[in-house]
Amino acid sequence: MSRRDILGRVVNLSRRHGYVYSSGHLRPSMGVKGCFDYGPLGVELKRNLLNEWWSEMVSSQEHVVGVDNATFQSSTVAQSSSSPGQNGTSTSQHNLSVRLHEGNGEACLQSSLHDGLFSHYFNTLCLLNRRLPFGLAQVGPCFNRSSSSQEHDTFIFNGLQTSEMSMQFFSTPKTSNLSFNTWHRDRLSWWRKFAGIPSDFTATDIKTTEHVQSTEIQYKFPWGVDTIERISNHGSVPVEQMQASFKTDMQGKDGRKSVIPHMIETTASLEGGLLAYLVDGYQEKQRTDTRGQSVSREILRLHLRLAPLKVIVLPLRGTKELRELSDYLGKEFRKAGVNVRSIVEVSPSLENYYTMFDEMGVPFTILLNENTLKTGILRVRQRDTTLMQQLHITEVRDMILRHLEAD
Amino acid sequence: MSRRDILGRVVNLSRRHGYVYSSGHLRPSMGVKGCFDYGPLGVELKRNLLNEWWSEMVSSQEHVVGVDNATFQSSTVAQSSSSPGQNGTSTSQHNLSVRLHEGNGEACLQSSLHDGLFSHYFNTLCLLNRRLPFGLAQVGPCFNRSSSSQEHDTFIFNGLQTSEMSMQFFSTPKTSNLSFNTWHRDRLSWWRKFAGIPSDFTATDIKTTEHVQSTEIQYKFPWGVDTIERISNHGSVPVEQMQASFKTDMQGKDGRKSVIPHMIETTASLEGGLLAYLVDGYQEKQRTDTRGQSVSREILRLHLRLAPLKVIVLPLRGTKELRELSDYLGKEFRKAGVNVRSIVEVSPSLENYYTMFDEMGVPFTILLNENTLKTGILRVRQRDTTLMQQLHITEVRDMILRHLEAD
Repeated sequence: MSRRDILGRVVNLSRRHGYVYSSGHLRPSMGVKGCFDYGPLGVELKRNLLNEWWSEMVSSQEHVVGVDNATFQSSTVAQSSSSPGQNGTSTSQHNLSVRLHEGNGEACLQSSLHDGLFSHYFNTLCLLNRRLPFGLAQVGPCFNRSSSSQEHDTFIFNGLQTSEMSMQFFSTPKTSNLSFNTWHRDRLSWWRKFAGIPSDFTATDIKTTEHVQSTEIQYKFPWGVDTIERISNHGSVPVEQMQASFKTDMQGKDGRKSVIPHMIETTASLEGGLLAYLVDGYQEKQRTDTRGQSVSREILRLHLRLAPLKVIVLPLRGTKELRELSDYLGKEFRKAGVNVRSIVEVSPSLENYYTMFDEMGVPFTILLNENTLKTGILRVRQRDTTLMQQLHITEVRDMILRHLEAD
Repeated sequence: MSRRDILGRVVNLSRRHGYVYSSGHLRPSMGVKGCFDYGPLGVELKRNLLNEWWSEMVSSQEHVVGVDNATFQSSTVAQSSSSPGQNGTSTSQHNLSVRLHEGNGEACLQSSLHDGLFSHYFNTLCLLNRRLPFGLAQVGPCFNRSSSSQEHDTFIFNGLQTSEMSMQFFSTPKTSNLSFNTWHRDRLSWWRKFAGIPSDFTATDIKTTEHVQSTEIQYKFPWGVDTIERISNHGSVPVEQMQASFKTDMQGKDGRKSVIPHMIETTASLEGGLLAYLVDGYQEKQRTDTRGQSVSREILRLHLRLAPLKVIVLPLRGTKELRELSDYLGKEFRKAGVNVRSIVEVSPSLENYYTMFDEMGVPFTILLNENTLKTGILRVRQRDTTLMQQLHITEVRDMILRHLEAD
């Protein structure tokens, strides 16, 4: 299978198992071109990736706080501002405008979080007693009409509506180069941490354009290498310009000295990341079936932390006792915050179940049978090894939690 | 202080401490009327409430799955559909339309999640082998131009952009009344769980309009009682209509029998909830200062689970050793997933700090002094009691985690 074919397979698998549908999946006339809907597995994958980002960039950072903005910008701002992260070109030409109340003029849907995030700079500087460094982080929807002109199908990568995960870090001038290099390195490590093939995630050399240093983190998509995150060092220009425009002291403190902070910015695409990990996790394997025929099998090897559904509980007979045991296990996992599903129907073929669960990317399948009722022994099948492990029912929850918590 | 005055106080406190700002806080001409930006504390409060909802309505539910939709709807759908939850009136008159690519017509920004959520019904029914009951849940932005016509200031309650937290539950006809009553009861309990004054959250009597049974959960806002959630039993009508329109079998399974599922819907307003808890937590207390003067003190008694910043670490002198100890404690809390901030400046007045932390709604302040370096003993001040407790440094993390985990 060529690398280009993978996209079609991933799109197909995504639709089949409730990851992502094109808008209008119910009836094409109801859809909006370039928009996508997320099914049960897709929405959990998205939540997992977003929460990993927030945990890495906000919760575990001493100096970064989150903020959130309305997705509307006033039209006057959108026309005058340019987003320096985007190679210095103005973003206004791509803005989507919305007519609000009669007489209240128009507003634009933001095409980048850059301006909204930076509008929190002064308030937050004051809240934090002007102490440097500090960072502002946000995840939010961005709207981009340029998505219609794409040359080839890129699925969710370039939709009309995407989600940016952005952070602006304000450091003292003397530490800004160190900060830039540290974020650059840390962001690449973060992407690689969840990858099956880490070397498919790479960083470009640092380029300097109009005093902005920048580097891009890229993934080897089926259509070629493309950017999923940009890290830039804007230097002192953004705060200098804002200070000049507002005629207010916007300096931060380096010890007792007042300085113009430098801005380091990281801007990642949530949908770019989702598609990268879907492609990264997609594998096709040949196996020999019970009649000696070679058949191909698809697996979605998502990282344990990203996999939307961690555990499926499968009772091998439909008796009341086994169903009760299955419900009990389900509750135990849910209480521990693990996404679990219990299967009620019993199919004659276990192979069909394994095929389905592998395509869904479920790391663990727990098999219960009559013997489990007598001895407490059950079997756990792992997606990545297809191996079976025998365990006592009292041990299974902790065994799986240990796997999930290991990085 | 009259109840009407509380809103102004809450708005003021929110702006002062980085909970919520009106759009255009940086420069009024940049703002969009009816829009709001969230500062560092506001965004964490919002995340906490949203995560509590998701945990209650999706993660801990055996039968509910999450989905997610683009915020655009095609204009044709928006014009023809009506949202039966909204007393049967069409929502289309309030839709905001957006011109997309040239020649690609217009799309609307959704004014409710109802249609988008229901568009997942058939796909999910098939994914789950048509087994009933099941539920679909989503949190997403909704846009409503009717917000301009409000009679009095309602702050974030009625903004141009709000977030709905919605769930549609599809049950067998014979269990739909039980489901409706159970959700009704559970939703009210959920709101009351986080309240300082639970009786300010009430449910209306059940009304029946055009075959839709519905009840509203309301909060006693400063301007009067207003609705923060609606729970409806739409009966078999939604699935019947969809089945007729698509000419496809859309029945679910009750055991081996095929039945038209009934739809129970719960639709809550995230911003309504945020404002309710801000008002609920706001208290003004009189105290006597060191010079015998009576001064008033504001406290934001947010529930421990909702409070954005759980712990502040405050070294009482600016020595290097104390700062290192403070950093160490900060790291310990962050590792445990607890939002913490360390204060670096040392102010001469502890009272000023307490006043500020109480207004910010911080439940715990940890005080470190020279004695802590020698003996390991530190003091913890609790927001709600203003009492001090002496503890050894090895015990403080677990003591606070126990408080946070207790419901």
